[in-house]
Amino acid sequence: MKLRTNVPKSFAPFSQTVHPDLKEECGVCGVYAHRQSAHLVYLGLTALQHRGQESAGIVSFNGKMNRHVGMGLVFDVFKEEHFKFLKGRSAIGHVRYSTTGSSVLKNAQPILVTTHYGQVAVGHNGNFTNADTLRKELESSGAIFQTTTDSEVILHLIARSKEKTLPEAIVSALKKVEGAYSLLFASDRNSHGRQESMMIAVRDPMGFRPLILGRIGSSWAIASETCAFDLIGAKTVREIEPGEMIVIEGSQTFRSVPISKPLGRTAFCIFEFIYFARPDSKIFGKSVYEVRRELGRQLAREAPPPRGVDCVVAVPDSSVLAAMGYAEEVQLPYELGFIRSHYVGRTFIEPSKPMRDFQARIKYNPISENLRGKKVVLIDDSIVRGTTSKKLIRLLRSTGVKEIHMRISSPPITGSCFYGIDTPNKSELIASSHSVEGIRKFLKVESLKYLSIPGLLKSARGTTSKYCTGCFSGNYPTRLLDLEKSSKC
Amino acid sequence: MKLRTNVPKSFAPFSQTVHPDLKEECGVCGVYAHRQSAHLVYLGLTALQHRGQESAGIVSFNGKMNRHVGMGLVFDVFKEEHFKFLKGRSAIGHVRYSTTGSSVLKNAQPILVTTHYGQVAVGHNGNFTNADTLRKELESSGAIFQTTTDSEVILHLIARSKEKTLPEAIVSALKKVEGAYSLLFASDRNSHGRQESMMIAVRDPMGFRPLILGRIGSSWAIASETCAFDLIGAKTVREIEPGEMIVIEGSQTFRSVPISKPLGRTAFCIFEFIYFARPDSKIFGKSVYEVRRELGRQLAREAPPPRGVDCVVAVPDSSVLAAMGYAEEVQLPYELGFIRSHYVGRTFIEPSKPMRDFQARIKYNPISENLRGKKVVLIDDSIVRGTTSKKLIRLLRSTGVKEIHMRISSPPITGSCFYGIDTPNKSELIASSHSVEGIRKFLKVESLKYLSIPGLLKSARGTTSKYCTGCFSGNYPTRLLDLEKSSKC
Amino acid sequence: MKLRTNVPKSFAPFSQTVHPDLKEECGVCGVYAHRQSAHLVYLGLTALQHRGQESAGIVSFNGKMNRHVGMGLVFDVFKEEHFKFLKGRSAIGHVRYSTTGSSVLKNAQPILVTTHYGQVAVGHNGNFTNADTLRKELESSGAIFQTTTDSEVILHLIARSKEKTLPEAIVSALKKVEGAYSLLFASDRNSHGRQESMMIAVRDPMGFRPLILGRIGSSWAIASETCAFDLIGAKTVREIEPGEMIVIEGSQTFRSVPISKPLGRTAFCIFEFIYFARPDSKIFGKSVYEVRRELGRQLAREAPPPRGVDCVVAVPDSSVLAAMGYAEEVQLPYELGFIRSHYVGRTFIEPSKPMRDFQARIKYNPISENLRGKKVVLIDDSIVRGTTSKKLIRLLRSTGVKEIHMRISSPPITGSCFYGIDTPNKSELIASSHSVEGIRKFLKVESLKYLSIPGLLKSARGTTSKYCTGCFSGNYPTRLLDLEKSSKC
Amino acid sequence: MKLRTNVPKSFAPFSQTVHPDLKEECGVCGVYAHRQSAHLVYLGLTALQHRGQESAGIVSFNGKMNRHVGMGLVFDVFKEEHFKFLKGRSAIGHVRYSTTGSSVLKNAQPILVTTHYGQVAVGHNGNFTNADTLRKELESSGAIFQTTTDSEVILHLIARSKEKTLPEAIVSALKKVEGAYSLLFASDRNSHGRQESMMIAVRDPMGFRPLILGRIGSSWAIASETCAFDLIGAKTVREIEPGEMIVIEGSQTFRSVPISKPLGRTAFCIFEFIYFARPDSKIFGKSVYEVRRELGRQLAREAPPPRGVDCVVAVPDSSVLAAMGYAEEVQLPYELGFIRSHYVGRTFIEPSKPMRDFQARIKYNPISENLRGKKVVLIDDSIVRGTTSKKLIRLLRSTGVKEIHMRISSPPITGSCFYGIDTPNKSELIASSHSVEGIRKFLKVESLKYLSIPGLLKSARGTTSKYCTGCFSGNYPTRLLDLEKSSKC
Repeated sequence: MKLRTNVPKSFAPFSQTVHPDLKEECGVCGVYAHRQSAHLVYLGLTALQHRGQESAGIVSFNGKMNRHVGMGLVFDVFKEEHFKFLKGRSAIGHVRYSTTGSSVLKNAQPILVTTHYGQVAVGHNGNFTNADTLRKELESSGAIFQTTTDSEVILHLIARSKEKTLPEAIVSALKKVEGAYSLLFASDRNSHGRQESMMIAVRDPMGFRPLILGRIGSSWAIASETCAFDLIGAKTVREIEPGEMIVIEGSQTFRSVPISKPLGRTAFCIFEFIYFARPDSKIFGKSVYEVRRELGRQLAREAPPPRGVDCVVAVPDSSVLAAMGYAEEVQLPYELGFIRSHYVGRTFIEPSKPMRDFQARIKYNPISENLRGKKVVLIDDSIVRGTTSKKLIRLLRSTGVKEIHMRISSPPITGSCFYGIDTPNKSELIASSHSVEGIRKFLKVESLKYLSIPGLLKSARGTTSKYCTGCFSGNYPTRLLDLEKSSKC
Repeated sequence: MKLRTNVPKSFAPFSQTVHPDLKEECGVCGVYAHRQSAHLVYLGLTALQHRGQESAGIVSFNGKMNRHVGMGLVFDVFKEEHFKFLKGRSAIGHVRYSTTGSSVLKNAQPILVTTHYGQVAVGHNGNFTNADTLRKELESSGAIFQTTTDSEVILHLIARSKEKTLPEAIVSALKKVEGAYSLLFASDRNSHGRQESMMIAVRDPMGFRPLILGRIGSSWAIASETCAFDLIGAKTVREIEPGEMIVIEGSQTFRSVPISKPLGRTAFCIFEFIYFARPDSKIFGKSVYEVRRELGRQLAREAPPPRGVDCVVAVPDSSVLAAMGYAEEVQLPYELGFIRSHYVGRTFIEPSKPMRDFQARIKYNPISENLRGKKVVLIDDSIVRGTTSKKLIRLLRSTGVKEIHMRISSPPITGSCFYGIDTPNKSELIASSHSVEGIRKFLKVESLKYLSIPGLLKSARGTTSKYCTGCFSGNYPTRLLDLEKSSKC
Repeated sequence: MKLRTNVPKSFAPFSQTVHPDLKEECGVCGVYAHRQSAHLVYLGLTALQHRGQESAGIVSFNGKMNRHVGMGLVFDVFKEEHFKFLKGRSAIGHVRYSTTGSSVLKNAQPILVTTHYGQVAVGHNGNFTNADTLRKELESSGAIFQTTTDSEVILHLIARSKEKTLPEAIVSALKKVEGAYSLLFASDRNSHGRQESMMIAVRDPMGFRPLILGRIGSSWAIASETCAFDLIGAKTVREIEPGEMIVIEGSQTFRSVPISKPLGRTAFCIFEFIYFARPDSKIFGKSVYEVRRELGRQLAREAPPPRGVDCVVAVPDSSVLAAMGYAEEVQLPYELGFIRSHYVGRTFIEPSKPMRDFQARIKYNPISENLRGKKVVLIDDSIVRGTTSKKLIRLLRSTGVKEIHMRISSPPITGSCFYGIDTPNKSELIASSHSVEGIRKFLKVESLKYLSIPGLLKSARGTTSKYCTGCFSGNYPTRLLDLEKSSKC
Repeated sequence: MKLRTNVPKSFAPFSQTVHPDLKEECGVCGVYAHRQSAHLVYLGLTALQHRGQESAGIVSFNGKMNRHVGMGLVFDVFKEEHFKFLKGRSAIGHVRYSTTGSSVLKNAQPILVTTHYGQVAVGHNGNFTNADTLRKELESSGAIFQTTTDSEVILHLIARSKEKTLPEAIVSALKKVEGAYSLLFASDRNSHGRQESMMIAVRDPMGFRPLILGRIGSSWAIASETCAFDLIGAKTVREIEPGEMIVIEGSQTFRSVPISKPLGRTAFCIFEFIYFARPDSKIFGKSVYEVRRELGRQLAREAPPPRGVDCVVAVPDSSVLAAMGYAEEVQLPYELGFIRSHYVGRTFIEPSKPMRDFQARIKYNPISENLRGKKVVLIDDSIVRGTTSKKLIRLLRSTGVKEIHMRISSPPITGSCFYGIDTPNKSELIASSHSVEGIRKFLKVESLKYLSIPGLLKSARGTTSKYCTGCFSGNYPTRLLDLEKSSKC
């Protein structure tokens, strides 16, 4: 008898399949000047739960800064008693899936430290690509790190800064870091050094990750995705621009400070549309729902089903929209192929005598009555290692389905992401070593086709100077210092 | 700040909306003569979780009978250590939602007692309609009850029986009870009084609730729905017949014993098709998936959308199939209207200053981008009190949708269920006091139409002598003794 | 690495050693008509914790009866939230160590059942010596037992009684039971059948176990020992007499009802003085402190130390008083021989490579500096199996002590107790099979002497017609029906 | 109804009273090169539990360093699973009561950080008297602190050191700190920079706190008190000298490095003898048992009882030895005055309507039978605020005792401790503002006498150049930099 944990990452708490192979990144949420700031941030974090299910945390601030973080889901980490403690009219929060640093409590964010600028907290979504280099430099000159995350580097750079104010220190520190970051800071002193709350949001010059500014009455809100605003009743003001720092020191207005010169391009993560972001969010100026459905339509145009196919089924829940778009475009019925269980982050006990495909079976039950003897198109949003898809196909085959034609609503993933999504090493990505035909054989399906990169960009209405397609194309929009050093790249 | 519990009943752990107003009944699962019996029952119970989320329990037996029960979901109640304790080659299990008896641990099933037939355990799905009367009689003659459930009555009747064997005592006891029951018994003595395991399954003469017999290799399996068999790798043998008792005392064969004379009719609960059963189950000889989708098609034929409607949306997840059937029939696009959160049985903390429709909001987020300015048909499977629907419609309205035409894939619920579904009192059912037009006004929708009773029966391919439609028609197929006594009926 | 539980029984929460070999019996406490009844009972139970550390429970009553029980210590079982639930102006409580029935939650007391006299709860200290016989009779006529305790028998006898009132039913039921019992009942109906609280305390005709009546202001209190009264501020009124039932139905007065004819003798358990009762209690008309110290003095008179002994040490904490009395009588210094750890019911983890005498070592550390090269008298209150004593002596020897002369402040235990103390089977009692000289050799001490039975009785100022000395003398004051049947006696 | 926590500090887990007013300091334990190092350290910590009950922690090391810390008692913090994680042949541990820094998890020790010397962990017993000053200097130059303890300062000084090896860096860092410290370091690199374990123990130049070196077979052990060695089977090698650093890099031998020039005096904390250390320990070259008993004898010589006194009683458990010494010297019987409950660190619930002296009552029950009408000498080891003593005396008075003559086995505490014992501020110390007669009136006793400072020193066989008597005499043996700055002194 083995004990297996249904690791949170595998079970998104909303109707979106979570890849067992693609870990989420992180999400941030902040509310400034609201009587219930910590509560609203808590609710915002539940809406962002799909972006990080390993740990959650909130720092509230109002003079004194209070922090509560824990391992697990937002609903498990926060109990009523914590809100008695999380006082203050402002708060920032974070949900995390580790892309760097190991999965332990001390790495939970927001990180809160004391510097000569006062207490400073930070939540980070993204990945500094030169964090290792910077960390070694800092440690050799006596810095002691509390965490093993890349995010702490920025705090040490700030603590050692000689600038007058925290905003200046942040700008100065960010000049040294490279990579992807949407950062949310909180401080108990404002930029005049007074004991007043300040909230600062910054997005890296290429804007890899989304970061949105909103308004609830006369309060300010910040979040990674607009779905957090819907839950807390905030209205979107606008997206924070790539390379922009927003400094909030009062409820009336905010200051916008550029942190770099314009680069002439952006690098929005196109995977947010394919899989990560919630379909009810609007990011990078577009409805995720619309783009995701369009991916299915475009896929249908590029890779239509062979003749005689009976219906289209999806890997629930993340591929449902693409499958609906596909079915619509090719005028085939869309059928539910699987019933999916939603045991969010639960531990279950596997029988001692192992059952074949147990892990897949406990999540998905194919609906035999519906599929027996049929020829189906199976839509998935992506294939990472291929092993999960293989199990799912085996389950589907057990229903007596006649043919399986797999269609993927994104191009083959041939490289890792270095900007905040924890893809496996390149060597573990099936598309880095197998041709499409090779993958088809591995999966044992009658046919397999992927969306093209141009088709992907077209669906998202952009080009390679707008979106990062590094994991599909190998064209990474920044240098990758630490990787170059370790020749891992 | 109020603490609210996302009561398990409101959040089915698979992709099916659970009515906050219609509580599930119960589910049973048993495995006889298998090395991993308790594990398989545990897995079977997870597949039946939607049938009862208040408590779960397993009794394993093999000579000594061992019992572990707990409040909450199957995954929470059972930990690895319990399986060290739940030894034995046979086991029965139960998930419960109370239809009688309060929600406390002592009411968790299977109930295990010692009688002069040896130790006897029972799990019950259904409701004895004369339980109160019987209980009073038993208590006045000195019986001490352990639980406040109706299910315990049957055990006292057995304990006081003078029959020679347990199967005979069960038949004798069942002659005294009325109502709906699918019962699963376990005993440490077989019908020859020897210290060997015996498993007995019985279904009431009208067959209100499903009960299926299956086979895993040379082991026997029993479950409320076939979806439990899919997970544990069992094959369906056949449904247990209304009025049939199956006695299993060895792995080779079983005995079928009639418990009553043929009645010339059955009373399968048609609500199992509308809402309760999992779509990947086959019960009452039919695929739930097919019937549920057909309900949508039939609804479309009876109540087509007005001209100019743009799309069909469902209340996720329970109405998805009906909505897909409806959309297909009327050739309108099916769109996702809501993103649903799956916080199964989690506790969340509500802000102190209440937010309007908070409870609905935390579960459903309408996808504004998709719906703004559109005229939509909203499909739901049923309306109970009407309050939940009203909140959902308010949320949907907030997206800027232009018109909402509501269509219900079942007839108006005008009466309570007395056979195992915990519907509210008649007086709380909106359709018992409001006309369809009255309900439409209450819900504030542009139009509202229900499926007809004939349309319902047609979709399920049966008549009133096959199905119970009591909650829609008032035609209850049995007398209701306790209700008549209390003149509640 | 093995996980061992410092089983509660081995660690009394007050300064009294608990024999790993002699399990405690039970304790009861009740408060009638007090605004804080459940709280006071809770506190009373903490003072009685030494009488039972396996489970604890309270039933409060005031119209509705509420029950909370749990496994473990009183402080662990009861949390603040339980007192919101344990409403009512009266309450009874129980701490348990199982003398019959296994150690599981369902056996925790008070037991609460519904009978035709209303709801009835009972807590029991003692042991019915014909419980098995009665239970079999009851089961064969259809009674279903909830627990495996002897205590439940009395409730079934009551439930089946045809008497008019609960007090009469209790008297009638008690006529059928034999053995030792101090019982505390609660009911939601008074003896006139009205919905008012009634508390009833009964002591068996021989009065094996103590039971005291007290007063807090205008409220009534009942407890097994007076130390519970000290904590809750109650004054002792008087001991409940052997064979007396006290019925309390109002705060003004109580009724005393005889349950049997006078027997001409009593059978107070003399072991309460030797070891069980708290030294700050007064029971059987005497101060436990005084009697226990006198046992040491008498032991000194009967078994003085050999010449040249330097000092007297005790096995802490239960033998401290006897050791002080001994030292005083023989005019030798009393020294602390051991420092004792008080890890009440804590679990500790033993190293994987076992350490010799680890279990003893973690509880007792001998004070080497103090004992090296000395000749000591070691006082213990009793020897049960002898194994624990042996380990302790080995530890003591490791300090470099020169000679160990062991003196026991009670006679050799040659038989089991059938009246509520869970002594091991006769065969496991070292004194049932070994002479004093044999035990001395086993323990490896220079000399060993016990107190005599006459000396014991003299110290407690009584005779064999006052005290039960069954475990020392084999003269059990009642017949032992179940034992005779099973020829175990 | 108020919830009170029986704060661990108030309930030492061995037979020693813990002052509610005098918090313990800390304890350290380390084992080098033993197959079960983490287990042995765990056991050692349980023996040192009286030195710190707020948090406990272990760092094991062997190449990789692993850390587990938690709030609460050793038995609660460590579970079996932690030892799977705490691998390695060496380990250091710490029990803490905060003397600086607040009581939160992040302040639990050992602290583990990464420096350019590798990973370094430290456990600290004592108090740096210039920690605030140093911390401010470090923070202003960019250091980020993880904890609010004084102990972390030493790690930052080490991290910034330019010395070649960790031992040299420690010596260099210690030159900057002042005050009391017994430090235990662990590192994953040895002094040659190789990936091998190194354990370092240092004691401040005055040797305020004890620190002992021991041997278990061919392994090394370090502990604050010898009682830890007794439990783990270690033999004392010798005390680490004031101003000595012991570097252990292999199991064969160790290096002794002086960290300062000889001072010509020491400042052993004499309070360790009076109250803190366990009586079964040997520290500062003496048996605590012997010194503590001698304090009672000396007190008897200086402050004999008035004529007519009947007996001597102690405040259990810490004053038992002094009381026994006193009684012996004056030839009066020593009686138990109180039964003490040992609810180690348990939470109990106080009734809503407060009971007078509830807190004292739940811990101590006076034995009335024994004391009524008697004239007693009551021995306590010290009086801090006086409030606890007052309650205890009130309880004692309630027994009907005739006269109470209080004798204290130490001099009046007139000043705070700055070397690791968390005494209250001077203003809260009753003896700083009241004469002995004033205290007597406050306590309402017939007479009150203290031991003299010369009597104290005589009992411990030393002079003011051997022991620190600062809290009694005001003669603090070091400057107190932070206090001088804040003019608190």
